[in-house]
Amino acid sequence: MGGDDAPEMVIQGAQIARTRLPHVDFLLFGDQAKLEPLLEQHPDLRPACRIRHTDQVVTGDDKPSQVLRTGRQSSMWMAVDAVSQGDAAAVVSAGNTGALMAVSKFVLRMLPGIDRPAIAGFFPTRHGESVMLDLGANVDCSARNLVQFAVMGEVFARIVLGIEQPSVGILNVGSEELKGNDAVRSASAVLRTGALPIKFHGFVEGNDIAAGTVDVVVSDGFSGNIALKSAEGLARLYATFLKEAFSSSWLAKIGYLLARSALVKVKLRTDPRRYNGAMFLGLNGIAVKSHGGTDAVGFANAIGVAVELVTHGFNERIKRELERVNSDEASAQVAAL
Amino acid sequence: MGGDDAPEMVIQGAQIARTRLPHVDFLLFGDQAKLEPLLEQHPDLRPACRIRHTDQVVTGDDKPSQVLRTGRQSSMWMAVDAVSQGDAAAVVSAGNTGALMAVSKFVLRMLPGIDRPAIAGFFPTRHGESVMLDLGANVDCSARNLVQFAVMGEVFARIVLGIEQPSVGILNVGSEELKGNDAVRSASAVLRTGALPIKFHGFVEGNDIAAGTVDVVVSDGFSGNIALKSAEGLARLYATFLKEAFSSSWLAKIGYLLARSALVKVKLRTDPRRYNGAMFLGLNGIAVKSHGGTDAVGFANAIGVAVELVTHGFNERIKRELERVNSDEASAQVAAL
Repeated sequence: MGGDDAPEMVIQGAQIARTRLPHVDFLLFGDQAKLEPLLEQHPDLRPACRIRHTDQVVTGDDKPSQVLRTGRQSSMWMAVDAVSQGDAAAVVSAGNTGALMAVSKFVLRMLPGIDRPAIAGFFPTRHGESVMLDLGANVDCSARNLVQFAVMGEVFARIVLGIEQPSVGILNVGSEELKGNDAVRSASAVLRTGALPIKFHGFVEGNDIAAGTVDVVVSDGFSGNIALKSAEGLARLYATFLKEAFSSSWLAKIGYLLARSALVKVKLRTDPRRYNGAMFLGLNGIAVKSHGGTDAVGFANAIGVAVELVTHGFNERIKRELERVNSDEASAQVAAL
Repeated sequence: MGGDDAPEMVIQGAQIARTRLPHVDFLLFGDQAKLEPLLEQHPDLRPACRIRHTDQVVTGDDKPSQVLRTGRQSSMWMAVDAVSQGDAAAVVSAGNTGALMAVSKFVLRMLPGIDRPAIAGFFPTRHGESVMLDLGANVDCSARNLVQFAVMGEVFARIVLGIEQPSVGILNVGSEELKGNDAVRSASAVLRTGALPIKFHGFVEGNDIAAGTVDVVVSDGFSGNIALKSAEGLARLYATFLKEAFSSSWLAKIGYLLARSALVKVKLRTDPRRYNGAMFLGLNGIAVKSHGGTDAVGFANAIGVAVELVTHGFNERIKRELERVNSDEASAQVAAL
């Protein structure tokens, strides 16, 4: 029931995902009276779906604390709970991010060895895609949090982007060791020792994100969220300027028509729907947050991310990785942070 | 002597600035043997310039602390000192940012009522330009710092962008009052009272920067630097994608030629040289930092910013504004931060 155009968009997204991933079944949580007629329009999808009815819905304005107190019968809570009960392998929602994070933390709990969850997302780069985390789950982060994000982000990039040995960088205001706050400097000092099984690049700056300098960009949730949204804002501005330029004269309009197929490729490369599906890393269960304003194609991509993480046993790999970290000489350093 | 292509670029920049601002004279600090032959190539500029010779140069790798200890004879220090002595009305440098800030703070001192300086810069938006600060002078900022940045940024936007009553926003991870860290929440609470003579919009998110939601974006130096550079990185990525698209086929190439004059306008609107010239606000003197990698046109723009701030008595207006703030009912709140 979450997202600007829910539940229509969600059902259509499931339909698209189903054609791509015919082995996936869906549990739909929400108002049966609304969901049933929508499903009837998709006879291919219908047999793959079961509806679990509830009237209660978490809105975009609901405070996470309030949802934790009174939201147990909401479609969001029931969907997360289905993962905790083993009824679902993953939950995908386009609803209230803060509420989804709070409920997921409460119901699924953290993975052993992880102190705080992180939101990870994708970013288009010169070379393809990179992973960035945290995108807003934690306003303040300690060095210890950042090191754990590095471990989780690295496994995430291996699984979802298929990069064998992803390089990891910490977002900072300069590349020199002395730059930045205590958290980034201490985290970098630990990763720099090479004791953790991570290809650590060092510090990266804001412009390195789109340049693709590293495969995984680690950051606190405050700066990470601001970095991502600043870049999104500039992409939108650039697109607006181009649109205005191409409609500013007859010559420009003809020029656009001739270059159209090439320009459509640029649009596809930077299409936010392609990068939809932010993963809540560090939880004892797979939870993927779709952008609330996405369409069915974007939602289907978010479902795709969830399926990939389940298929590749993401959380089991994180657990193994953390055991390696803990049995490692670096563990003392990480623990001391 | 500072900047990637100094001193040639600096002299050429002065030449361009001189044609735009024929009343401006220049004091050039650096190696006379290098500067003199360069000046001879510009007979129009020569009479407007005096050279103050020094061999010592601050490099991009020099640590600010080291420059403070041993850099008194450097061209950078001498240039800043000329402002403090009243020989120059402003200093413009494309050199080491950290060193320039450290020397400027040490030599010029802070304006009364300002605890920390901020670096302010421009950003292209949907509606024109906005001002953003701090862009990296302070990694950690208190609420009190942010409120002072708001006051300085507001006056800066009035003078340099000519906006009568600029709107001010604080950069955050969400627009709701409860979002973010203590510093942004407390600063917002003070500005929200309306007791300060500032048109306060509230919180803005990363995407609001390019959208031009507010005229002045206030942020700590860590997030501000990352936001600006992330957006720059994405702009560069977009430009690369477009370039590849327009050279991907004959049709696209012809399309580019037809749309060329419209596309050049987009390039100009987003040209980083247009937005060159970051101001060090809060110092008892005008200091403008040019991007180290800029060219002569960009450097001339940085000179233009400095001249505008001098002409409009920027620091006097800041002082008056701070007196208004201090005589105001909000002063108790600001002081209590």
